[in-house]
Amino acid sequence: INTNVRFSLPAVCVVWQTAMIILFGVFIRYDEESDPHWLEHKKLNNISSDIENDFYFRYPSFQDVHVMIFVGFGFLMTFLKRYSFGGVGFNFLIAAFGLQWALLMQGWFHSLDYTDGKIKIGIENLINADFCVAGCLIAYGALLGKVSPVQLMVLTLFGITLFAVEEYIILNLIHARDAGGSMVIHTFGAYYGLSISWMLYRPNLDQSSRLQGSVYHSDVFATIGTLFLWMFWPSFNSAITDHGDGQHRAVINTYLALASTVLTTVAMSSLFQKHGKLDMVHVQNSTLAGGVAVGTAAEFMLMPYGSLIVGFCCGVISTLGYIYISKDELWILIKSH
Amino acid sequence: INTNVRFSLPAVCVVWQTAMIILFGVFIRYDEESDPHWLEHKKLNNISSDIENDFYFRYPSFQDVHVMIFVGFGFLMTFLKRYSFGGVGFNFLIAAFGLQWALLMQGWFHSLDYTDGKIKIGIENLINADFCVAGCLIAYGALLGKVSPVQLMVLTLFGITLFAVEEYIILNLIHARDAGGSMVIHTFGAYYGLSISWMLYRPNLDQSSRLQGSVYHSDVFATIGTLFLWMFWPSFNSAITDHGDGQHRAVINTYLALASTVLTTVAMSSLFQKHGKLDMVHVQNSTLAGGVAVGTAAEFMLMPYGSLIVGFCCGVISTLGYIYISKDELWILIKSH
Amino acid sequence: INTNVRFSLPAVCVVWQTAMIILFGVFIRYDEESDPHWLEHKKLNNISSDIENDFYFRYPSFQDVHVMIFVGFGFLMTFLKRYSFGGVGFNFLIAAFGLQWALLMQGWFHSLDYTDGKIKIGIENLINADFCVAGCLIAYGALLGKVSPVQLMVLTLFGITLFAVEEYIILNLIHARDAGGSMVIHTFGAYYGLSISWMLYRPNLDQSSRLQGSVYHSDVFATIGTLFLWMFWPSFNSAITDHGDGQHRAVINTYLALASTVLTTVAMSSLFQKHGKLDMVHVQNSTLAGGVAVGTAAEFMLMPYGSLIVGFCCGVISTLGYIYISKDELWILIKSH
Repeated sequence: INTNVRFSLPAVCVVWQTAMIILFGVFIRYDEESDPHWLEHKKLNNISSDIENDFYFRYPSFQDVHVMIFVGFGFLMTFLKRYSFGGVGFNFLIAAFGLQWALLMQGWFHSLDYTDGKIKIGIENLINADFCVAGCLIAYGALLGKVSPVQLMVLTLFGITLFAVEEYIILNLIHARDAGGSMVIHTFGAYYGLSISWMLYRPNLDQSSRLQGSVYHSDVFATIGTLFLWMFWPSFNSAITDHGDGQHRAVINTYLALASTVLTTVAMSSLFQKHGKLDMVHVQNSTLAGGVAVGTAAEFMLMPYGSLIVGFCCGVISTLGYIYISKDELWILIKSH
Repeated sequence: INTNVRFSLPAVCVVWQTAMIILFGVFIRYDEESDPHWLEHKKLNNISSDIENDFYFRYPSFQDVHVMIFVGFGFLMTFLKRYSFGGVGFNFLIAAFGLQWALLMQGWFHSLDYTDGKIKIGIENLINADFCVAGCLIAYGALLGKVSPVQLMVLTLFGITLFAVEEYIILNLIHARDAGGSMVIHTFGAYYGLSISWMLYRPNLDQSSRLQGSVYHSDVFATIGTLFLWMFWPSFNSAITDHGDGQHRAVINTYLALASTVLTTVAMSSLFQKHGKLDMVHVQNSTLAGGVAVGTAAEFMLMPYGSLIVGFCCGVISTLGYIYISKDELWILIKSH
Repeated sequence: INTNVRFSLPAVCVVWQTAMIILFGVFIRYDEESDPHWLEHKKLNNISSDIENDFYFRYPSFQDVHVMIFVGFGFLMTFLKRYSFGGVGFNFLIAAFGLQWALLMQGWFHSLDYTDGKIKIGIENLINADFCVAGCLIAYGALLGKVSPVQLMVLTLFGITLFAVEEYIILNLIHARDAGGSMVIHTFGAYYGLSISWMLYRPNLDQSSRLQGSVYHSDVFATIGTLFLWMFWPSFNSAITDHGDGQHRAVINTYLALASTVLTTVAMSSLFQKHGKLDMVHVQNSTLAGGVAVGTAAEFMLMPYGSLIVGFCCGVISTLGYIYISKDELWILIKSH
């Protein structure tokens, strides 16, 4: 079996990467803002300065999202909680393949230019590919160590495809876009994928962390991961919203919802904990719930107090949910012995 | 007492958060740049593009300040130097409550729109709230473990109020704004609060670190904290300065002052240390002094050599001050036995 | 000797910093975008908004480059792999002196205003100084612990000078600028310096890491360092490219090349490793090769598939090179006993 793995992983990597090169060669081109046609585009649309290139609206948020996905989700929350550093290469592998495939799949469904049959990519496509990869890292990261790297690659291929199809159904078949800007739906798609992945990997995670050691290091890294996610969530929610007041409002709403969530999470956690101490697992998970909940509606006119209310409810529900489910699981665990 | 704590913390969190929701509902609205009125505002002021929204001038700096406060001050410098990870929830709690209260207090004093009695918030208010919280995290973080979480919340309430009142006195009663742009004064307020907090918690910190163990981990985290503060200080000083050359100049001045400080800190530290080795405590504290000192005047025409001179002096004074005060403290400690 | 060191380091620091202040006083001024002349400059060039100041085009990339250099190269890759935290002050020292000297040297060669004999600096000069310091940190960081701090300072002085002279020869004597934009050449200079430094310090590093302990911590920090470098490399390559589509395209090309490199690195590494496991040293070094290779041509019209091809080849060559050279070294090591 070992010799099989030894050749199958290199073969899959090289063949699939070659396939990516061919598919990119056939389908993917720069869009008019990342191409010398930008000069013509500027003239045609009466744009006076290079600063109005979409790049300058979204690049700072893009880098924050990048940090969230690799440092926050992928590395600290998912990865280091369960594995040694030696496997970080496989984490990287899923991400690197996933983002190329996501650019293609999301491109075919959403950015295909029917005049020449090419997908035109820009900074917004990179952000959407990052969102897509986040779901995979969480979902398939949970399987790391249980399935082979080649199986992980196959799962990533299917996962990204599913994600893009689901997005297409919501957007173009159900016409959910009528409810708001299309960007809102993209965000919905991202959160939908994230939530499913999150739920799927939780039970498994809890059992493994009960059984395995290295609890202190887990906590250090999970806490730093939480911190980066909490700090950069406003960028996550504003990365693909509308220019101008849309991005501005999305940041304010997310910032307030996150703050409000912390207070109710602490309240619920210390109410159900002995000696009034905090359970760090609640803090790690529930403080982010406000950001998730406000995500799909971050650019709406929620009003500052509306965002606080969303955060308030999320903190309560998320922490209670976590306490209830964990106890239930514990009960199952006890019964099964 | 335990049962008392068990219910008093949740009660304070839930009641105060509810009060925040009501106060935000009555007082806080989006300003004209984070609101659909942005479209009218653009027309009225002949603004040609969404990129001129204040959001795009300040958001990258805002995220750097966020990292400085949570990763730099709050988490690594203050928190991890003394506590286990289990208490990070309380740190979060102070920050999350503090920033909501700061938005209200600073809003009443500085951003109140007298035509409709509402506070209009935008990205600049979020940055100012972050500055305010930085002071509290440092000042009250020092008390963590000695006072109860409920007492911490009460202290935060008073601390933020004091900060906003003091800012109001400097700005509107002493009319200190004549000396420079009003933003300079805001920065002054922030530094004033920071310095007081810093001084207050130092002696206490040194004693506790002498008594407690885990010295290696303290140093690792304090050094990473210093690194992030040193790297992002130009963002701290340019976050609320004037658009255009103001922000540009603030970054250059801070960058140069920080570089200059490092050389004189190393000089002083190795002069007074045995074997010419460096005392990491000096590096951790004094290398940042240049950034602090240039802070209140970062957008002035200091000239590049002027910034170097400021940094030069700060490194010398700060390191000497630290050596002198530490020895004095040691002397008191010896005498008291 | 100790007393000698005790006074020579402070003397060098204070005297050289004083020299910097004098040289900055004579030569360095703000450029027209970081100076109140920005207002006139705006009128003369028909610039309608402060947002068109070069600061807003480059500041987010500048901060990412700063993080790469201090957290990525300087601290995690170079420094922590070999030393305790106690020596981080010397690392800081090289950087702080180096960037001042780089501003002067690069200024004399490239930004000298012949009308008044002054060097006019702005955000782009700070980025170039950071690039210059990166080379020194890697090259001279390798000598840390073997030479005295004063010798390190002298080496930094010569290193930066050499770097600036070499840049001048490529740019102005060979007239290499005809091949592309002058910014491309700057990037070439940066990479040239980086590659030399990288090669020089490698063999030494490998031997020391074989001999010394603390392997786990080395790996933790080197992996986090790799992660930050991988995430922020698009900023490194786009920091000084042309405004508009140039910066946009540089980010897309780098992002794709980095993704492609990961797959071929994993393929090569698992092909030559027993049991199909990954060698983290390959992942740490070769995943970045795509970013380095695409660097000098990042803003060219490589096309998305072209970037993937560059990344593909880099992953293969870099990993094979590393495997071959390491084995060779091992052979020398065995023979010499």
